[in-house]
Amino acid sequence: MMHLRFITSNKHKFEEARDILKRYGIRVERISIPVVEIQSNSIEEVAYNSLRYLVERRLVPSMSFLEDAGLFIKALKGFPGVYSAYVYRTIGCEGILKLMEGIEDRYAEFKSAIAFYDGKSIHVFTGVCRGCIGLEVKGSFGFGFDPIFIPEGFNKTYAELGNNVKNKISHRARALISMVKALRANIF
Amino acid sequence: MMHLRFITSNKHKFEEARDILKRYGIRVERISIPVVEIQSNSIEEVAYNSLRYLVERRLVPSMSFLEDAGLFIKALKGFPGVYSAYVYRTIGCEGILKLMEGIEDRYAEFKSAIAFYDGKSIHVFTGVCRGCIGLEVKGSFGFGFDPIFIPEGFNKTYAELGNNVKNKISHRARALISMVKALRANIF
Repeated sequence: MMHLRFITSNKHKFEEARDILKRYGIRVERISIPVVEIQSNSIEEVAYNSLRYLVERRLVPSMSFLEDAGLFIKALKGFPGVYSAYVYRTIGCEGILKLMEGIEDRYAEFKSAIAFYDGKSIHVFTGVCRGCIGLEVKGSFGFGFDPIFIPEGFNKTYAELGNNVKNKISHRARALISMVKALRANIF
Repeated sequence: MMHLRFITSNKHKFEEARDILKRYGIRVERISIPVVEIQSNSIEEVAYNSLRYLVERRLVPSMSFLEDAGLFIKALKGFPGVYSAYVYRTIGCEGILKLMEGIEDRYAEFKSAIAFYDGKSIHVFTGVCRGCIGLEVKGSFGFGFDPIFIPEGFNKTYAELGNNVKNKISHRARALISMVKALRANIF
């Protein structure tokens, strides 16, 4: 059985990854190391640089990955994007709904970027889930902006759909599956 | 005459610093180098780490400084804070006013942190300007959130007051003056 290590301080992210990777027969262990994130408009760049920082200092073993994710709202020029965690901690879901008041185009994308270290180099995998911003906070599963994000093809938020559904269609699931495919294809 | 170097890609910041330092008989030259900023809740940490990154790579000469600044709104738990530039580029002044709708406590602080390299080590100086968020966008001077920030003791925004007044009372002026005092006291 393959073993991977997920560097994250977010237990929700870890649990999602554990459930998703289990379906592919992969076990994942959580590593908590303080990670330095750079300011950038791209989650790929944040994930890549955060992992490179750790790799350069020999702080991570081989077969480790970390993830950066963000909610990109079209009408808000991509806000909160790469700073989603900070924006969630400050203005929260309610703040986003207030900003979206009176705005008709509610299109948004949740994006995930995984940086993976195979012991030699760093590979980046991405996943996107298209959807829209709901009119109110709904549901109690998940974390962060899950209660206001309605994925395409559903009329419920991530937080209403629950982890079972979310983990099949989410941005994070898609990025993880890209990584799994690369691992299986033995491309490294 | 003392010569300093200000590492910034923001011409407004440079012009303010030039005008402020001129009053103290200090000349300042602008250097444009791409700067890597980390994600942090503290502008002091961002300024310090950005400069350290450049110093470690010998990319900056002695007597150089850079600055990080942010608008911290109490009712929004410090938002937009350290990510003010990004928030300005996405949701702008109008977004902040929308978030502040119906909120009575409009207290806010503009903060500036300067990291200065004397050729041996890095020193950090800070400046704060207390004030509040106005009810509408007003004035055309300055940049960023200047049109919605009313400094304490005034009934006009930074952008209405203009550079002459702003450069006497602003967060940036205060941080620069702290730096000047340290330089004059020859503490390095």
